[in-house]
Amino acid sequence: MDYVGRQQRLREALPANRLDALLITHLSNIRYLCGFSGSAGALLVSPAGSTFFTDGRYTEQAKSEVQAAKLVVARKTPLTAAAEWLGRKWIASRARKSQTLGIEGPYLTVAARRGLSDGLPRHIRLREAPPLVERARMVKDADEILAIRTAVDQGAALFDRALQVIRPGVREIEVAAEMEYAARKGGADAMSFETIIASGARSALPHGRASNAPIAAGGFVVCDFGVILHGYCSDRTRTVYVGAATTEARRVYEAVLASQQAAIDAVRPGVNVSRVDRVARKTLQQNGLGPYFTHSTGHGVGLEIHEAPRVAQGQPEILRPGMVITIEPGVYLPGKWGVRIEDMVVVTEQGCEALAPTQKEFIVI
Amino acid sequence: MDYVGRQQRLREALPANRLDALLITHLSNIRYLCGFSGSAGALLVSPAGSTFFTDGRYTEQAKSEVQAAKLVVARKTPLTAAAEWLGRKWIASRARKSQTLGIEGPYLTVAARRGLSDGLPRHIRLREAPPLVERARMVKDADEILAIRTAVDQGAALFDRALQVIRPGVREIEVAAEMEYAARKGGADAMSFETIIASGARSALPHGRASNAPIAAGGFVVCDFGVILHGYCSDRTRTVYVGAATTEARRVYEAVLASQQAAIDAVRPGVNVSRVDRVARKTLQQNGLGPYFTHSTGHGVGLEIHEAPRVAQGQPEILRPGMVITIEPGVYLPGKWGVRIEDMVVVTEQGCEALAPTQKEFIVI
Repeated sequence: MDYVGRQQRLREALPANRLDALLITHLSNIRYLCGFSGSAGALLVSPAGSTFFTDGRYTEQAKSEVQAAKLVVARKTPLTAAAEWLGRKWIASRARKSQTLGIEGPYLTVAARRGLSDGLPRHIRLREAPPLVERARMVKDADEILAIRTAVDQGAALFDRALQVIRPGVREIEVAAEMEYAARKGGADAMSFETIIASGARSALPHGRASNAPIAAGGFVVCDFGVILHGYCSDRTRTVYVGAATTEARRVYEAVLASQQAAIDAVRPGVNVSRVDRVARKTLQQNGLGPYFTHSTGHGVGLEIHEAPRVAQGQPEILRPGMVITIEPGVYLPGKWGVRIEDMVVVTEQGCEALAPTQKEFIVI
Repeated sequence: MDYVGRQQRLREALPANRLDALLITHLSNIRYLCGFSGSAGALLVSPAGSTFFTDGRYTEQAKSEVQAAKLVVARKTPLTAAAEWLGRKWIASRARKSQTLGIEGPYLTVAARRGLSDGLPRHIRLREAPPLVERARMVKDADEILAIRTAVDQGAALFDRALQVIRPGVREIEVAAEMEYAARKGGADAMSFETIIASGARSALPHGRASNAPIAAGGFVVCDFGVILHGYCSDRTRTVYVGAATTEARRVYEAVLASQQAAIDAVRPGVNVSRVDRVARKTLQQNGLGPYFTHSTGHGVGLEIHEAPRVAQGQPEILRPGMVITIEPGVYLPGKWGVRIEDMVVVTEQGCEALAPTQKEFIVI
């Protein structure tokens, strides 16, 4: 991974954002910038270079993982260590004129900010920085796309396992267990989120986790699942019908599939994400299903399962080559059933490529 | 669960802490106080009563779960909704004199605090509250101890599965996969943390997650694992030897076991947690192993896998009946191997009870 380039671009963005340095505490941002995958650390990026702070539990891991940054293993918390280090080194070299240190407002807690502030000399001011790293992370480089592609391939294979297991009477949680077991055996770091297996009326809940409920004969089963492989996430949804499908079930399924395809077709550089959302929504509206599509069309995926951009109404982002987003329209008939179909796509120079575009025909079990 | 009593006691603690109300945003604290188990919500506790804010995704779940609080399903984020609600109702009823709203500093982010503050009328001040809910959660009531006991029993059974799987050449991740599969089939909500299966030299890493490495013939395997069942966590460590054990390996194992037993024996009401830590440490020091016990002796467990109190040097907490803590001394010989033995205990009126105290004799595979 191009840690040097990523840090360099961030460094170059500091002056325009009126920051003398930026203290990165969000773990995904830290991993993106220097490779550290542990759970305690802080990365200080300044014009003079980068310094990574961690604690004694991560000495070996930090030594083997952290790139393009000096390493400080502290006896205290990484944040306290960073504050003390700044007080000693950074400031001394800058003749004690007033300095602005950027912090990550959406991730740093109020208590951590106070602790940091208490440890700093008075002439260092803290300021919430714009989401510079999150913006950079929206556009994936070739190494990242390869990692995501591998994660998507492995994630996609879990649905084959689900198809072997889904039967009337089998509990949702058993299906999830089989998929998660296959993922672990396949070498996944973890699931990228709690596996959703939602059958019967529960399929109408967009966030219905796998429950102890047995799968009923006659109804949809929504399977939403993903893995983390070498830090990168996959995310996919398939919906199957158990039992003899009604005409209405088939009609709704085909409408969701058409909506997804229309949205995928709309993905290309220069297009606003809100337009992709509008296209997905319009197809469902034309089928009289508009009111039942109750969430946004998609989101970015990478080191985090949900990251920028949001593919939703009112969002400002313009698609660029290298962005990786989900396209996941759904229809939810409350108390009855629901259908969702989701794939990840990578924006290319001309349009987009669906990652591991396995069959999406109506499946009856 | 006694949601009414928990909220009542919190309410009674507000005046002494100079708070007119407290806004709870930490999900475990929300679950403890009103039963909501979803991932987006805010609970406002004031003398006049409690109000829970969530968004449209959780309408049904909140209706079925939330107790002892009025429910507000907002179109915006729960925090924004809470701010607007406070601006309209709470303040109007209080004749606009200055009010102090407590926030949870260790959980609320800087950006969320700013958003909340921006949405509030000027005469409501925000102040970091002391950890009132965390302190209450330290002492478990009968319902909670029952839930924890059930989780520990289920968690303990996973080690039987591990013993069937651990063999030279089997990958650590396969052992973890088998245990996690058994947990899911047994109905666990999830694992309470990433399963640790650390073999060979990796057993000397206190936080060695299951890797792709095959288990070597000749060496310890540290297995640290737990489940979440109905929201409550279990946590346990067992260490086994694969191959013909050396005298040194047996000696170190027995020393860790003696250290754990001594610490368990020291647990009773009125004792400072730091004393329990000291007892565990002293036993290892007497065996010349003091420098190799590099972490603290234990921590509270409940709705979170790590919660108050910390069983460590310099900690102020005094043990009280109903507290549930881990006792987990370990010895780590860098580059060589490590041993850790961990059980959860509940403090009783006279002493303590180890939860599911399965055999801890030296096991050779």
